[in-house]
Amino acid sequence: MMTESIESLQKLAEQFGKLPGVGRKSAMRMAFALLQLDELDVAEFASAMLDAKQKIHECPICGNLTDEETCYVCCDETRDRGVICVVEDVKAVMSIEKVREFRGVYHVLHGVISPINGITPDKIRLKELITRVGEDGVSEVIVATNPTPDGEVTAMYISKYLKPLGVKVTRLAYGIPVGSDLEYADEVTLGRAIEGRRDINS
Amino acid sequence: MMTESIESLQKLAEQFGKLPGVGRKSAMRMAFALLQLDELDVAEFASAMLDAKQKIHECPICGNLTDEETCYVCCDETRDRGVICVVEDVKAVMSIEKVREFRGVYHVLHGVISPINGITPDKIRLKELITRVGEDGVSEVIVATNPTPDGEVTAMYISKYLKPLGVKVTRLAYGIPVGSDLEYADEVTLGRAIEGRRDINS
Repeated sequence: MMTESIESLQKLAEQFGKLPGVGRKSAMRMAFALLQLDELDVAEFASAMLDAKQKIHECPICGNLTDEETCYVCCDETRDRGVICVVEDVKAVMSIEKVREFRGVYHVLHGVISPINGITPDKIRLKELITRVGEDGVSEVIVATNPTPDGEVTAMYISKYLKPLGVKVTRLAYGIPVGSDLEYADEVTLGRAIEGRRDINS
Repeated sequence: MMTESIESLQKLAEQFGKLPGVGRKSAMRMAFALLQLDELDVAEFASAMLDAKQKIHECPICGNLTDEETCYVCCDETRDRGVICVVEDVKAVMSIEKVREFRGVYHVLHGVISPINGITPDKIRLKELITRVGEDGVSEVIVATNPTPDGEVTAMYISKYLKPLGVKVTRLAYGIPVGSDLEYADEVTLGRAIEGRRDINS
């Protein structure tokens, strides 16, 4: 096959194939696209990779990613250190930040408890969370793990550990997505929406 | 926004966003995935990029891509230099090579004539084709441009220029894709399939 014959093209496509959601064909298309860029742009791309990998690390306070000493949320003097939002991963931080509603700080677990997958409580950043809550005069912990079975178990676990410390532990509200239609809501979501109903004008 | 705050992550995502079919969200997902790789793998990825860009160039004979002096088809002594398959781009070479049926050589036009897009015959590798056909004792030119209006015009143009040189000019067969269903064939394809019908056992 020809692709095997242009060795450096094949190797490049293999690298793109390592990325999520990139199959063999897309990988080759990306490799071709890269060759279309001029030499300077390719050099910039390559150095952006090396640079990001070298500079980005976990924030020692919250586990968020950063290329500074601590992440930009933990650096920000205007954020309320008394409210910690616990999330599974850095993408969740980005999603919540986009809303521009939450003014507290984060704690990134880098995973959820999942016995089936061998992820026991000691494998995620739970100990760090408990330490933080104990030290920092935290008034509320909002558990924003995903509404999956593992996310729920993790939320329960966190609640069990933190409540004795006298901290308020809350969970994000479940319900019908805004702009959606009842017709398309699954039963579990609809059940939770009914269970969590609120007074109008509340 | 947080993404703007991790500058090196943002920059990396921008680079992935330059690739075809990669939107803002996918680009960020790819940037995250890259950070999951260990340092050595990222270095390998970056060097595969630089390496491919530096080494790969057009084959001076046929316009195919290569990282050697000439491409592997032109190098191959067993290929029939008397039959040239004319294609729009390198991807078409790869598609045809995958079939392992064609034993001639290629000529990559790097485009098709497209007056609307300002691509006149002198902007693609047509002159090189005519020179090759004149010099090399070529018996047949198979025009395998895509069955699009521009591809057709280009095929007609090539045929008009080459026929006077006494060379046989052919075009790939149109018809129902194998394994497909007549029900799903568009009318133009079906029309061409009827027009190009052949005796059974031919």
